[in-house]
Formats: sequence, C-alpha cells, structure tokens
Amino acid sequence: MAPPRVLTVAGSDSGGGAGIQADLKTMLALGVHGMSVVAAVTAQNSVGVQGYWELPPEAVRAQLESVLTDIGVDAVKTGMLASAALVSAVAAMLAQVDAPLVVDPVGVSKHGDRLLDPAAVDTMRTELIPLATVVTPNLPEVAQLTGVRVEYESELPAAAAAVLELGPRWVLVKGGHLSEEPAGTPSAEAVDLLTDGTMTIVLRSPRLDTIHTHGTGCTVASAIAAYLGLGLDVPGAVKAAKDYVSGAIAAGYGLGAGIGPVDHGWRWRAGSRT
Amino acid sequence: MAPPRVLTVAGSDSGGGAGIQADLKTMLALGVHGMSVVAAVTAQNSVGVQGYWELPPEAVRAQLESVLTDIGVDAVKTGMLASAALVSAVAAMLAQVDAPLVVDPVGVSKHGDRLLDPAAVDTMRTELIPLATVVTPNLPEVAQLTGVRVEYESELPAAAAAVLELGPRWVLVKGGHLSEEPAGTPSAEAVDLLTDGTMTIVLRSPRLDTIHTHGTGCTVASAIAAYLGLGLDVPGAVKAAKDYVSGAIAAGYGLGAGIGPVDHGWRWRAGSRT
Repeated sequence: MAPPRVLTVAGSDSGGGAGIQADLKTMLALGVHGMSVVAAVTAQNSVGVQGYWELPPEAVRAQLESVLTDIGVDAVKTGMLASAALVSAVAAMLAQVDAPLVVDPVGVSKHGDRLLDPAAVDTMRTELIPLATVVTPNLPEVAQLTGVRVEYESELPAAAAAVLELGPRWVLVKGGHLSEEPAGTPSAEAVDLLTDGTMTIVLRSPRLDTIHTHGTGCTVASAIAAYLGLGLDVPGAVKAAKDYVSGAIAAGYGLGAGIGPVDHGWRWRAGSRT
Repeated sequence: MAPPRVLTVAGSDSGGGAGIQADLKTMLALGVHGMSVVAAVTAQNSVGVQGYWELPPEAVRAQLESVLTDIGVDAVKTGMLASAALVSAVAAMLAQVDAPLVVDPVGVSKHGDRLLDPAAVDTMRTELIPLATVVTPNLPEVAQLTGVRVEYESELPAAAAAVLELGPRWVLVKGGHLSEEPAGTPSAEAVDLLTDGTMTIVLRSPRLDTIHTHGTGCTVASAIAAYLGLGLDVPGAVKAAKDYVSGAIAAGYGLGAGIGPVDHGWRWRAGSRT
C-alpha cells in the first residue's frame, strides 16, 4: 500500500541541510512519500548562500501539473518561492487543491541572505497565506509580513493575531529568538505559539546549546505537512513535528566552517548504518 | 559526530521517485549526509517526463564549489547531466576531487524519454567515465556508450570489457533486461556483472514481479556511493547496495497511473509512522 503523498514547493540547498533536501529527508523519516517542485536552486553551504537561480514560472507550473494530475497529494508545504511571479503561479494552482497546505514564509536565511524578493512578500501575504492551513513564521518573518515586532513572550499573541488577519486557518509563531523580560537577555526556552484565533497552544522546549540548526524552519514545516498527510489534526501535527525537530536539532552535527545541519535521521541513526 | 558526506550531481524528478530525490532518500536511509547539485529540473510523474529545464553550467559549477570548498565529500555520484556542457563542467571539477566517484550514465528514462543530449554521450565517454571508481550502465546504456548489444548472460563479460576500455576502475553492468538462451524469453533472474578487469563478481537476484521500479538505477548508484562513503570497498559496496535496492523494489508501491517508485524507507517502514 502506498504511503501518503506529501509535496514540497521550495528551493534547493546544495549543502543538503535545508530547502527541498531537508523536506525530502523529513518526509522519508516520517514515513510519507516525498515529492518536490523546485522553484529555485541555490549554491549554498554552512557559511552562506553563494549563488541563486530561479526557475521560470512555466517550469514551476509544469512540475506542479505533473504531480497533481497523476500522483496527487495528501498535503503540501511551500518554502522559498523566490519571486512574486513564482508565489503567484504557485498560489493560483494550489487554490485548486483540496489538501492541507503548510506555508513556511521564508524570507531570509540563517546567515541573513535574502531568499525572497521584496515584491514577493506582498504576493505571499495576499495570495498564498490566505490559502494556508498553517503558516509558520519566525519572528523576523512576522515582522516582514505584518510589521509587528516581537521581543518578549508576552507579545506573541498580538503577533499571531496580526498574522491570522492575513487569512490562514492556523498560525504557528516560532519564538526561537525571544528575550527574557525585562532583562533583554536571550530566553532559556524556545516558545512557539499555535492558534486559530479560538484555541491557543503554547509549545515550550529548552533552547539547545548548538549552532547546528541549519534547516530547522524547513524541517518544522515539512514535518507538519507530513503529519497532516498521515491524518493528524493541526495541533497534533504541530506537536509531533516539534518532537521530531527537537530531536533533530539535538543530534545536529558540524559540517563545514559554519552552521551545520540538523540530523533528519536521528531516530534511526544507531541502527541505520548496516 | 558527523556522518560521511555524499554528494549527488543529477536531475530533479518532481514525482520524488528518481533523480536527486531518490539519491537523497537513499543516502538518508543508509545513514550518510546527502547533498545534491541540481543539473536539470524535470516535470515528471509515473507516466513520463512532461518538461525539462537545464541549469546553466555556471550554476552547476557554483553549487559544486559551495559543497567542495566548505563541506567536502567522502563520495560522489553523478546521474542525469543533460548536456555536453554540463558533463564537461562537472568532469573538470570532479577531476580535482579525491573521493570515490560513481557514474550512472543515465541515457533514457523508464518511459523511453531521452534524458541526455546525444553530444553529451560522447563527452561522458571521454571526460567523465575515465574518472569513475564505478560506472553503472544498464544494457541500453552499454549499447549507447560502446555499441555492444547484449541479449544473453553469456555476452555480459564482453560488454563489461568494452566499458572498461573507456577507463573507469570498475564497471557494474546491470543485466535487468536479459533473455534466456536460446529461447529469447525474459530471464527469471536479474544478473549483474561487476568487474575491474581482474576480479569478476556475478550478482544474481530473482526478477521481481512488479512494475513499480521507478528510480531503481538512481538508487543503485547512490547506494553504492553511500556505502563507499561509509568505507566499504567496491565489491562490498555493490553487494550491500544490491541488497538495499532489492528490498526497495520488493516494497515498491503504485502512485499515479504508471510506474510507481521503489520504497526507500522499506527497512524502517513498519516502525516509522509514529
């Protein structure tokens, strides 16, 4: 029997830690059939993004068409979509798809490299996010999308409300960069807030002492999509995804001179070499 | 501790069954860190290849440069490289790399779609295959590369010798399409021949009764690269790869109206959903 079908529409990270590479690894790890529509290709490693090539909109449309008309999808995740034209092309096609959609509104990379054309932010806000079952911004992305700047945990609900105004069913605000009140020092906990405007769930996990977190955002979003594809509801999928990602961060490893990747295979690492 | 680093340079299959998608899944399944340089993007599903976009040579060079200068590699696999210019660009850079290289000389897809420009075949023969630690042609690819046509098992050694003439250290001729002598009916066994010109190993496995073999060739080559990255010698890596791929074919599943994928997660399938 075929496993659930989960599609990512995102960019390619040559270093294998983020982008469609992180998504496909996550999907295999969680037991679903991973598929990928490539929107852009980056030359990227542990120290930054060295190059960047967008696919033409017709190539993105054709890949989506090939997957949707023959194989079908049980859940979809979008990541880096590069330009307004690509965001718009993807949104127009996904509007016709009856499956949960996780939108990771990727704006900048861990190294501060810009991964989204500024005009694309507006198109994402107006055309793609309204289609989302869950949108998963971190704090810089909340600011980019809504203008709301968050420093303390007490400000998370207002940030989530501002994102919900854009029209998604649920928002997961990832508070990985919060400070302690009132001292302003980095918080010892990573606090995420999930809400649909009615129900609110606060997810806390200890901040792990590692720099090797490359691919975390992609992995969270694709893990949520995978669990939605497996039939979990949104709160269940988000909690399961957080568990998976926390383990992957804890097992992250150094590769290259900079930020190494999370370990997508951590659950089987011990037994997987033979 | 970081796992071995294994790089694929190949095309993208939107359906997730072949290309870099199959490679990355195989690498995760076998416990290595998978990375990928995208040479071309296909719009593809279970019934064929609907579209095809090459990356410019500078994009392929930049991706390779990002990986090689920072992260490094313990093994490399090449797959679909699309054009003579890309084959030549990749060969020039891999000539400087001191790691095992597996060349899968992808010529045509399972549906008969041409995935390699005819001029690229000659460049692969003269520039890339001489660098290979192992080259892994199937019978149509042996014919395309050497002109030698094989129908029966007894003809495999001559085919392998013709490929070795091109300069790789080892050749694995994949006899998946052999006939029985003298009747001409399909053989009940898949017979592969591995040789370096001195040692010859014949690998037999029962022909499995499934059409869901999409991605088999990519998976064999990337599994060999993964096992070489893990430190096995060539015969050991090829045998271990065949075991992995046989299980993946046996667990292959239907998705779409045509040829479904092999199951890269077969070893953990039972326990991986929770």
